Amino acid sequence: MIPYQIIEKKSQGLPLTDSEINEFIMTYTKGTIPDYQMSALLMAIFIKGMTTEETLSLTKVMLESGERMDFSSAPGFVADKHSTGGVGDKVSILLAPILAVLGIHIPMISGRGLGHSGGTLDKLESIPGFNVNLELNDWQQMVIKEHVGLIGQTGNICPADKKIYALRDVTATVRSIPLISASIMSKKIAEGIQGLVLDVKTGNGAFMQTPDDSRALANSLVSIGKGYGIKTTALITDMNQPLGSAIGNWFEMEESVRGLQGDGPADLMDVTYALGAEILKMSNPDLSQKAAIDLQAKTVADGSAFEKLKRITELQGGDPGVLDNLSNYPKAKYSGAIQAHESGYLAQVDTMALGFAGIQLGAGRRKITDTIDYSSGMYIHSRIGDNLNRGDDILTVYSNDEKSLNEVLALGEEFFSIEQSPSEIPPLILERIE
Amino acid sequence: MIPYQIIEKKSQGLPLTDSEINEFIMTYTKGTIPDYQMSALLMAIFIKGMTTEETLSLTKVMLESGERMDFSSAPGFVADKHSTGGVGDKVSILLAPILAVLGIHIPMISGRGLGHSGGTLDKLESIPGFNVNLELNDWQQMVIKEHVGLIGQTGNICPADKKIYALRDVTATVRSIPLISASIMSKKIAEGIQGLVLDVKTGNGAFMQTPDDSRALANSLVSIGKGYGIKTTALITDMNQPLGSAIGNWFEMEESVRGLQGDGPADLMDVTYALGAEILKMSNPDLSQKAAIDLQAKTVADGSAFEKLKRITELQGGDPGVLDNLSNYPKAKYSGAIQAHESGYLAQVDTMALGFAGIQLGAGRRKITDTIDYSSGMYIHSRIGDNLNRGDDILTVYSNDEKSLNEVLALGEEFFSIEQSPSEIPPLILERIE
Repeated sequence: MIPYQIIEKKSQGLPLTDSEINEFIMTYTKGTIPDYQMSALLMAIFIKGMTTEETLSLTKVMLESGERMDFSSAPGFVADKHSTGGVGDKVSILLAPILAVLGIHIPMISGRGLGHSGGTLDKLESIPGFNVNLELNDWQQMVIKEHVGLIGQTGNICPADKKIYALRDVTATVRSIPLISASIMSKKIAEGIQGLVLDVKTGNGAFMQTPDDSRALANSLVSIGKGYGIKTTALITDMNQPLGSAIGNWFEMEESVRGLQGDGPADLMDVTYALGAEILKMSNPDLSQKAAIDLQAKTVADGSAFEKLKRITELQGGDPGVLDNLSNYPKAKYSGAIQAHESGYLAQVDTMALGFAGIQLGAGRRKITDTIDYSSGMYIHSRIGDNLNRGDDILTVYSNDEKSLNEVLALGEEFFSIEQSPSEIPPLILERIE
Repeated sequence: MIPYQIIEKKSQGLPLTDSEINEFIMTYTKGTIPDYQMSALLMAIFIKGMTTEETLSLTKVMLESGERMDFSSAPGFVADKHSTGGVGDKVSILLAPILAVLGIHIPMISGRGLGHSGGTLDKLESIPGFNVNLELNDWQQMVIKEHVGLIGQTGNICPADKKIYALRDVTATVRSIPLISASIMSKKIAEGIQGLVLDVKTGNGAFMQTPDDSRALANSLVSIGKGYGIKTTALITDMNQPLGSAIGNWFEMEESVRGLQGDGPADLMDVTYALGAEILKMSNPDLSQKAAIDLQAKTVADGSAFEKLKRITELQGGDPGVLDNLSNYPKAKYSGAIQAHESGYLAQVDTMALGFAGIQLGAGRRKITDTIDYSSGMYIHSRIGDNLNRGDDILTVYSNDEKSLNEVLALGEEFFSIEQSPSEIPPLILERIE
C-alpha cells in the first residue's frame, strides 16, 4: 500500500476499499504514516465524503484497533447515550445517574471539549479530585456493581480513533458525517452496550447546522449501530440556543446538580427525559413514553438520582461535599453582563459564538496543551421568544482573566438579535430516527 | 489569525485574502504552524482551487520568503527551462549544456522526484560526487563564467515553497494548478531570469492528464511570468508514454549522455530542441525555428554539449569519467522483463503506473526520508503504434530488491494494452502557448 495513492484516490472522490481503509488507518495508528498524510486524507474525506460501506469499514478498523468491553455478565440492560455536541449540553451528567438508579447499566465513555463545544469529562473534572481515568477493569466492575461509571477514552479503546480525533480537532475536519459517525460509533460499540440513544444536535451551535445534515448524520449513526446488533435510536434536538442557562464547566456541573435536585431548566429536563425514555423503552418495550418519563422524574423527586451522582463522585475520587455546598465553589475574579441594546423579542442567539466566547473566558482549550479554568463561564438569562426591555441582562460572564472578559463583553450585542415582533420559537425535539 | 479558521474557509471553497495567505504561509515557514495543518490546507486548495488573485498572492509570498538572484551583470541572455514533470523526462540534462554552449546563461534550479515523476536533482546525483547543493554565490559565479550551474532549491530561495513542495510530494496535493503555478513560478522568478520556456506535460503520465488542464496550467504559468516581466512561452508536450526509453536515475543520466553523443531517442531529441528553440528565439528574435534547432544539433554533433556536461559535472564535484565509461556503472542485482501477452499494436501505456513502479523498484521515494537506489529503473522498448509479436520484451526492469522487482513484474501486462489495429499515435508537441 502506498499512502500517497490512497490519499489521491480519495481526493478524486473515489471510494476506498475495505482493505485500503484498514491498512491506512492501522499503519497510521502504529505511527508509520505521519500526521501530515493522515490530515491530507482527512481533508479529502471531509470534502469528498465516504460511502456507507467506507464509513462501516472506518468504524470497523477503529473498533478493532483496541479492546471491546464485555458486559454480558451484567444482570440487566446495558446502554449509553451520546450527544454530537453543543453549547450548554450537560445531559449526560443528569442522565447517567437517573438511568443507573432505574437499573440500566451505563458504561459511559465521554469526550472533552471539541471546537466550540464543551465536553462531559471537562465538566466532571471541575469537581476537585474527580478521576475520569479509571483502570478499565475497575471501571467495568463499577459499571456492574453501581450500574454506572464515567470515564474518558483510554489508550485501549479505539486507539485509532483517539489519534485521529485529536488531529481532526486542529485541522478543521470535525464536521464530517462519515468521520463523526465512525468516531462516535466505534467507541460506543467498544463499550459492549445493547442499547444506544443519540442526541443529534441541529442549529447554529451544532456541528451539523441544518436539520437535513443532522438527519443524515442521525441516519448514518443509527444504521451503524443496528448493523452491530445494538438497539439504536436518535433524537434530533435543537441547538439554536444553549441548552439550559449555564455554559462552562463548573457552571454546568452546578446546573446539573440543581436539575437532579428538582430545580433544573425546563428545556434541559425535557431533553434529558426524552433521551432517557428511549433507553428505558429499549430495555422494556412495554413501557409507555409517559411512564418512561415519570420513572425518571421520580428519581429526581425522591433524591435518589442526586445521591447516585454523589456516589459516582465519591467512587471516582471526587469530593461529593462540593455538590452539597454549591455556593462554596471558588468564584471567578471578574464578571460582567451584556444587556439588551433595545426592547423587543429575542430572535436569535449566535450559539457557536457563545461557545467560542466560553473558550476565550478560559472554559475551553485553544490547543491541546491548554488548561481549563473551571470557574470561567456564563449564564444566558433569556430564551428565544422572550420579551426584553432595553437594558435587561441577557448574558452574565465570569472569568479570572480580565482582558478576555472585556473582549467578550465588547462583542456584546453581536451574540444576539432582537426583533420587534415575536419570532418563531424553534422546537426542542425535532425528530426521532430509528 | 487562527489557522483552523483559514483551513475551514478554504475547505468551504471560499477565496482567502492576500493577508490570510501571506500570514499562513509565513507562519508555516517559520515552523509555528505544524505540517499537519499545512497539509490539510493544501488538500483543501487541491480540491477547491484558488482564484487568479489567490495564486498570485501565493506566488508572491513564496518568492518574498527568500532571496532573488541578480544576473544583470551577466553578458548575455539569462533563461531557464522548466518541465511540469513526467516519466523519463530528462530534457534538462541535455538542454542545459546545449544552451550554455550557445551562449545562453542557464541558472537552473531543479527539483527532486515528485509523486510518480522523477526529478533532475536525483538523476544528477546518480553521478558519484555530483553536488547539487552549491553555495548560492559559487553557483552564481559558475552561471556567469560557465553559462550554467545545476542546483537544487537552497534554503535561501523560496524557503516557503521548498517546505510546502516537500509536503505536497507526500500528501497527493501535487496536481493542482494554483499550487504548481506558485511553486514553479516563485522559483523561476527568484532565479533572476529574462526568459523562460515551460514544458507542460499532458497525458496519463503527467500531473495534468488532459490537454484542457494542461492548457489551463500553461496559461496560468505564462501569465504569472509575463506579470513579472519575463519572456515566457510554454509547449504542451505528450506524456502518454515515457519520454525516451530510460526510466530511473542513472538510466536516464546514461540516456542523456547518449543523446549528447548523438545517439538519443528521436522523441527526446525533438522535445529538447523544440524547447531550446524557444529560448534561442527569445534571445534572438530574428532566428528561424530551423536555425534554432540546427544550432543545437551542431553542439551535439561536434561534442561540445557533451564536453559541457562533463565540465559541469567536474565543477560540481562529480566524476566526469563516469560519463565517459557508462558501462562501468554498478548494475542492479536483479532484473526481469515484461513481454507482450499477445501480438498486435501497442495501443496504450499506463505511464503513471510505470512511474510508480519505478518508485517501487527503488528509483524514487515513498516518504521524504527514503533513499534512492540509483541502479534501479527500467527501459521501455516499444512506443505506441509499434507492431509487437507475442513474447516480445516491452519492458526490462532492474532493482536491488528482489521482492519489489517481482511485484512489478507480476503487474506485467497491466502496464500495456495491445490492439489488433494500429491506434492513433499521440503528437509529441501539441500546442504552443505564449
